Amino acid sequence: MKIQQILLNERPEGLPSPDTFKTVSVELPAPAEGEVLLQPLYFSVDPYMRGRMNDARSYIPPFKVQEPIESGGVATVVESKDARFSAGDLVMPGGGKNFFPWATGILFSGDHLRKIDSSIPPTYYLGVLGMPGLTAYFGLMDIGKPKSGETVVISGAAGAVGLVAGQIAKLQGCRVVGIAGGEEKVKLLTSDFNFDAAINYKGNTHLGTAVAAACPNGVDIYFDNVGGDISDAVMEHLNFFARIPVCGQIALYNSTDVPMGPRIQPTLIKFSVLMQGFTIGNYAHRYMEGMQQLGEWIRAGKIKYTETVIEGFDQLPTALLGLFSGQNSGKMIVKV
Amino acid sequence: MKIQQILLNERPEGLPSPDTFKTVSVELPAPAEGEVLLQPLYFSVDPYMRGRMNDARSYIPPFKVQEPIESGGVATVVESKDARFSAGDLVMPGGGKNFFPWATGILFSGDHLRKIDSSIPPTYYLGVLGMPGLTAYFGLMDIGKPKSGETVVISGAAGAVGLVAGQIAKLQGCRVVGIAGGEEKVKLLTSDFNFDAAINYKGNTHLGTAVAAACPNGVDIYFDNVGGDISDAVMEHLNFFARIPVCGQIALYNSTDVPMGPRIQPTLIKFSVLMQGFTIGNYAHRYMEGMQQLGEWIRAGKIKYTETVIEGFDQLPTALLGLFSGQNSGKMIVKV
Repeated sequence: MKIQQILLNERPEGLPSPDTFKTVSVELPAPAEGEVLLQPLYFSVDPYMRGRMNDARSYIPPFKVQEPIESGGVATVVESKDARFSAGDLVMPGGGKNFFPWATGILFSGDHLRKIDSSIPPTYYLGVLGMPGLTAYFGLMDIGKPKSGETVVISGAAGAVGLVAGQIAKLQGCRVVGIAGGEEKVKLLTSDFNFDAAINYKGNTHLGTAVAAACPNGVDIYFDNVGGDISDAVMEHLNFFARIPVCGQIALYNSTDVPMGPRIQPTLIKFSVLMQGFTIGNYAHRYMEGMQQLGEWIRAGKIKYTETVIEGFDQLPTALLGLFSGQNSGKMIVKV
Repeated sequence: MKIQQILLNERPEGLPSPDTFKTVSVELPAPAEGEVLLQPLYFSVDPYMRGRMNDARSYIPPFKVQEPIESGGVATVVESKDARFSAGDLVMPGGGKNFFPWATGILFSGDHLRKIDSSIPPTYYLGVLGMPGLTAYFGLMDIGKPKSGETVVISGAAGAVGLVAGQIAKLQGCRVVGIAGGEEKVKLLTSDFNFDAAINYKGNTHLGTAVAAACPNGVDIYFDNVGGDISDAVMEHLNFFARIPVCGQIALYNSTDVPMGPRIQPTLIKFSVLMQGFTIGNYAHRYMEGMQQLGEWIRAGKIKYTETVIEGFDQLPTALLGLFSGQNSGKMIVKV
């Protein structure tokens, strides 16, 4: 069976370009004993994937050059040589694996698959009930520790993580201020997603003033999805004992030089601020707790959810790049 | 009674100069009812005092221009109109006050004084049993949470806080690496204070390499007393789940511009690092615990202690400035 794969052709310097990717045709053998042949339905594209394109020590090993890029995904079973799976089952990576290779057909060990409940839209497992939703949940609740009446600022607020983090913060009784790029996104945050205020950072030369105006009582939690200038503006308005879950730095991921900025340690001391970098893998032992709570809120209509779905396997590189120019509202998904 | 006071003459830009200070002669009236006349014996000079010279929002209000500078101190009672105190008592600020004004004679309300135990050298209350010792204790134990076998790096290691922090880390079974300025200090750390290794940052153009060599298993706790380039070098070698108590940034306190440096948030995410800025006031409700534990260690000879004592009331500005060029080993004290 002939399938297509998208490889990491070369490690990008700065923003990835078409040369970063290469599509190849590969002959897939029939599944061996214990293997399952999968047809991918959806792939997730996520900002952290930029880091995996570099050859650097980090929490996930880098992608290998001339091998398929991989990401979260949902697939349907085509043929199974593992008694636990049958044709038609909806599956995701499991048993210690988190990613599918970018391919139109995949051979995968049944030991590293898990079935998903077909009563829930399958893309939810890549978004609000998946890595982004859990990132929002644990980052905000476990590190941010919101208290009713506090002010929470969320950067990347219209993204997959930010939308969920903001709504959770509202459920905790906080004033929630979102920062996003573009008037349309900013409107959506207050009209559809229950944010108290939203700031469009694009073209805003007085971001610090805007943050001050939106946060008359200062900032108690800054959920930092973005980094760079946006974070600098928020850091000026922190309250004593503020908490900063540091979850993503998309503003910096395509830098070719070491990104420079104001040193923040003096601010951390002055206001006794906590910063905690984290990745969702730290909470692997508590995923069930997070998914149960998020599922409850979704079923009760307390958390709303949106996705940007791009169609076509060949659109995977474009979708990934689109994250860095903010093409998405909510979770960015590619439908194969 | 004529006394001398040292005032903040003007707010310094960058490093304080002789113009920053002004010595004046003042006529002190006799103590009123409830007041105590004090003769200061020792004043503490500490890096955080630089921040109080600026007119900026922080955890302690700024010094006022044309008013006496103030700092921790130990005094003897000369005359008392408060029944709780008698001539000859050794006292420190208490009852919500932490500072004495820089003066050769002081009128102070008895409500804001506390007697100290004369069986312990009085300067210990300004150092190992005072603010610096407690800063080391709570920063390391409460934020750093050292585990036996971990590697702890301490910047400003030969200073009042760093010396104590390093010895506490050793008592927890850690490998302890100190960074200090000057060959003499570095030798002292390993010969007298039980550090496993020490790095002289002065004239060291490969500080990162030196940190790597001294920390073959990476850095689990970075007790950051100093900031700037020294911290940048340590940050390159953090382990997963490293903790950084941020206690002082003496390298930056005299900057006239906003100090710039490499953005650290990507490192915090990659290695799930915690940074917590703090000041000792956060632990006011636990001072007794800290003083008891430190006292026990000192009596058992498990923590050694050193001071740099400069003589003369008029040397207070010089002693304070000396901190920024690292003139001290251990606690810097002025004997009036």
